[in-house]
Amino acid sequence: MRTSIMNNIRRILSIRNKLAREALAEILSTFIMMLFGLGSVAQVVLGKKEYGQYLSINLSFGLGVTMGIHVAGGVSGAHMNCAITLTNCVLGRLSWKKFPIYVLSQILGSFLAAAVVFCVYYEALNSYCEGNFTVTGPLETASIFATYPQPYLSIGGGFLDQVVGTAALLVCILAINDKKNSPALSGTQAVVVGLLVTVIGMSMGMNSGYAINPARDLGPRIFTAMAGWGIDVFRAGNYWCWIPLVAPLVGALTGAFLYQLLVGLHHPPSEEEIKAYEMEAGTTETGTCEFM
Amino acid sequence: MRTSIMNNIRRILSIRNKLAREALAEILSTFIMMLFGLGSVAQVVLGKKEYGQYLSINLSFGLGVTMGIHVAGGVSGAHMNCAITLTNCVLGRLSWKKFPIYVLSQILGSFLAAAVVFCVYYEALNSYCEGNFTVTGPLETASIFATYPQPYLSIGGGFLDQVVGTAALLVCILAINDKKNSPALSGTQAVVVGLLVTVIGMSMGMNSGYAINPARDLGPRIFTAMAGWGIDVFRAGNYWCWIPLVAPLVGALTGAFLYQLLVGLHHPPSEEEIKAYEMEAGTTETGTCEFM
Amino acid sequence: MRTSIMNNIRRILSIRNKLAREALAEILSTFIMMLFGLGSVAQVVLGKKEYGQYLSINLSFGLGVTMGIHVAGGVSGAHMNCAITLTNCVLGRLSWKKFPIYVLSQILGSFLAAAVVFCVYYEALNSYCEGNFTVTGPLETASIFATYPQPYLSIGGGFLDQVVGTAALLVCILAINDKKNSPALSGTQAVVVGLLVTVIGMSMGMNSGYAINPARDLGPRIFTAMAGWGIDVFRAGNYWCWIPLVAPLVGALTGAFLYQLLVGLHHPPSEEEIKAYEMEAGTTETGTCEFM
Amino acid sequence: MRTSIMNNIRRILSIRNKLAREALAEILSTFIMMLFGLGSVAQVVLGKKEYGQYLSINLSFGLGVTMGIHVAGGVSGAHMNCAITLTNCVLGRLSWKKFPIYVLSQILGSFLAAAVVFCVYYEALNSYCEGNFTVTGPLETASIFATYPQPYLSIGGGFLDQVVGTAALLVCILAINDKKNSPALSGTQAVVVGLLVTVIGMSMGMNSGYAINPARDLGPRIFTAMAGWGIDVFRAGNYWCWIPLVAPLVGALTGAFLYQLLVGLHHPPSEEEIKAYEMEAGTTETGTCEFM
Repeated sequence: MRTSIMNNIRRILSIRNKLAREALAEILSTFIMMLFGLGSVAQVVLGKKEYGQYLSINLSFGLGVTMGIHVAGGVSGAHMNCAITLTNCVLGRLSWKKFPIYVLSQILGSFLAAAVVFCVYYEALNSYCEGNFTVTGPLETASIFATYPQPYLSIGGGFLDQVVGTAALLVCILAINDKKNSPALSGTQAVVVGLLVTVIGMSMGMNSGYAINPARDLGPRIFTAMAGWGIDVFRAGNYWCWIPLVAPLVGALTGAFLYQLLVGLHHPPSEEEIKAYEMEAGTTETGTCEFM
Repeated sequence: MRTSIMNNIRRILSIRNKLAREALAEILSTFIMMLFGLGSVAQVVLGKKEYGQYLSINLSFGLGVTMGIHVAGGVSGAHMNCAITLTNCVLGRLSWKKFPIYVLSQILGSFLAAAVVFCVYYEALNSYCEGNFTVTGPLETASIFATYPQPYLSIGGGFLDQVVGTAALLVCILAINDKKNSPALSGTQAVVVGLLVTVIGMSMGMNSGYAINPARDLGPRIFTAMAGWGIDVFRAGNYWCWIPLVAPLVGALTGAFLYQLLVGLHHPPSEEEIKAYEMEAGTTETGTCEFM
Repeated sequence: MRTSIMNNIRRILSIRNKLAREALAEILSTFIMMLFGLGSVAQVVLGKKEYGQYLSINLSFGLGVTMGIHVAGGVSGAHMNCAITLTNCVLGRLSWKKFPIYVLSQILGSFLAAAVVFCVYYEALNSYCEGNFTVTGPLETASIFATYPQPYLSIGGGFLDQVVGTAALLVCILAINDKKNSPALSGTQAVVVGLLVTVIGMSMGMNSGYAINPARDLGPRIFTAMAGWGIDVFRAGNYWCWIPLVAPLVGALTGAFLYQLLVGLHHPPSEEEIKAYEMEAGTTETGTCEFM
Repeated sequence: MRTSIMNNIRRILSIRNKLAREALAEILSTFIMMLFGLGSVAQVVLGKKEYGQYLSINLSFGLGVTMGIHVAGGVSGAHMNCAITLTNCVLGRLSWKKFPIYVLSQILGSFLAAAVVFCVYYEALNSYCEGNFTVTGPLETASIFATYPQPYLSIGGGFLDQVVGTAALLVCILAINDKKNSPALSGTQAVVVGLLVTVIGMSMGMNSGYAINPARDLGPRIFTAMAGWGIDVFRAGNYWCWIPLVAPLVGALTGAFLYQLLVGLHHPPSEEEIKAYEMEAGTTETGTCEFM
């Protein structure tokens, strides 16, 4: 009886459209990743390093990715990153038609996470900077949400930084999921990819905060523009804001290309692949590359 | 011969009643979780950050949860948290009749852990505050046991903080155990849930110490009231003490609802579910949700 | 040809005696655990916290245990701890005849590790304390090797500290390996037990350095007595040295008893156990408890 | 159609030669390991410990090894370390003909990683030392790339340090992969070996920066000699540079010998081994030892 009611609710609410399900899953997973990531930055900055240090930011973004993969991995692939979605499309693993929906979902999830972190830490924020939400200066708080470059960093240097970081991300994600190589045990990839994001932050986080993901940066940046930091969030650092949007896309493709060129392409074909190739079956992608 | 004796002892002591076994398991697992968690706070506070920092508290509560799950996961489900028990009841995975027993067991385990940590660190405590057990002031020690809000935090802000933290906990626990999604490998969930609690502490621990669990807070608070800190433990922070009891319950249900609404409900039914549904079998719960 | 030679060497060197193999395995695994553990203490103390902090000591002892389990787990069980060996004997899982051999092997491995750490850090040690190897004072270095109590700690307080720490260790080890409960995935227990030792250090390490293992303490203490610190290593802390020898044994049995009483004894018997019981087979232990 | 094109590209670029594939895999995996490792040192030094501490260096080299194993484990074995390659040759698991190719690939990967880290942190480096790339002095930056000894360390002490560290590495790697012992679960070895490298850094990193790998040290040292630090990188520390080339080779063989002598040799032979031995089949190595 009770089961019947629940089944009916389920039938009514249940979404059959695959893309809609994927969009919701990308929103929730990106939200979870960014809630943990941005929350940890807020805690370190507002707590003046008494409640965490740079390492806890690295660990939190890493574990945020781990949790995000569990939240959506079986539905949408849990990209949570426009650069990863782009690479999937280029490799033929995701339809290009889905690309804009994935990207918008990721940015929306990221935006919502910034909003929730803002609410959770609203009183701490006011206590810290006495209501002055600024993008520069010793009590700036914009960098809790979006990434900003170090004073010494040029636009070219920042672009390179983001390309290298995202390329390293993709090389390793491809390897972690490559069944013909030495992949992470099935069911543990979420943790291993989380560790990967942690090590990128520990080794390439200083220059500009390792966005390596357009959605991670743009959603919170738009939020801060609306929530009181103003248009400066786009102007700061010599209009830095476009770098985390463009460079990670270049980096992701570079990384995927590098892995394929040096390792992936040279795996001996499996028996099924040989058979499929002999049949010249042109309708299905043979899958030279495995994503999350 | 010796085996016979041991078997006899076993037969005499062995408890056949399932609920009694579950109660004992909840007591021991909550005890273990809190022994490690509270112990680490004591070590950081009394050791003046020479024997650990905020990160070690986050890690210890996380690993405490990991160990607690191993201790009772196969017997009672190792909830160790009234908010998780409530969600299980609401989702129809645990009988409501068991709810009070689970809750009392959890609070008892938590209370006992506070007592043991008090004994283990009794001499350190006296050396630190010279016998003055206070709830406020620079040498306060009440926050070793229960949670207290930051000076800047309002009741509303604290309520939100606990709702968001517990909601994030539930979203991820449901995902980690959701066989239709991308769950953690069976036998490794204890570690992954421990990492989840660690990341909640690193990202949402500053405002009020991330209780996200009524039992974690109430048991030790009652203990401190009895052990020398007095009635102030309930009055402090504008009667803060009710927030960690109520807000996590709201948060847990919010999180479970959110995960089901955005992800869980839309999984395509498995073949068995379709069959069961066609038979209109109203007697068994079809299990749309997997807990620990 | 080459294989033949290697096979011959193998035949000559190969030890068939099981106890001898177990002894060698206990020596090497305890050596590895202590090499990493003591090495990290040396690095933190002699490096004046520039090359690690208390957390790195906790992590190193934990990972030392992980590595030790891999080194000997399949041969001797990798106890590396007299308290664990004792509990195995009491539970009927190890022959009492093997007890002295295991204990001596563990102490020898621990002693050798202290000697190697001493050699590796000999020049750092001399640079740090200018050749004065002392047990007390601001530049004392004896605590790199053996454990010593905080000034505030009484003998009774220290005994309790060691009992509680070792009891927590045993409760969790029994749970991690209990196939009727929620055990760690086979092949990952080494890491989980390592995490357990880490969390004990983070939560109960301050009072007296969490020996929780007679072999961990005695081997290095004897070494320091011989290597220049003298007889003071036994006298210090009001003859502290007997506590880490006796209290962990009490604690281990307490922990094993507690786990069995509250959880282990009440598992419903498996079908094989019922069958075995019906046959009143008094010759084999029915194994109510699973160790490493 | 599209698949056909991709298959054609694949056919053209695909390398059939096994050694060439192994060389490329060793280059990429060593590159990834060193990118993360050296990047973290740069971040700690140039960020004046605001963006990480010694622990993050230990974690980054460890996770670098983890990622490197995923990148090449299934192709070349992901040695990334001349000392491991040498041991494999000595144990008959790798053809001696491959030795020089492996070694050159590893040094090349390491060299390229140093170059990329140099580019990524070029502006930070200039900002830190104002363009003075020095090997000694308070603002020296050569130690970001290669290893240098502490002032107190003698050549003999440094040699011992590297022998012990590399021996510990090999004992544990052999154990982690030894199927007759208690190996890490298949698919999780990459993480466990990463933890191993982390613990070596936490316990034996202070004396001279735990090279424990000729390729890790030589590649970046050559790069710094060319990039502006000059010939001093070879002269510093009383011509320290030869120690990380020679001592790890000695240490690796010592460790492998130790593990075989104390544990590996005494495993009872498996049934297949007995059969193979009875047939006196001299053509195939019976594999007493399992590497990555």
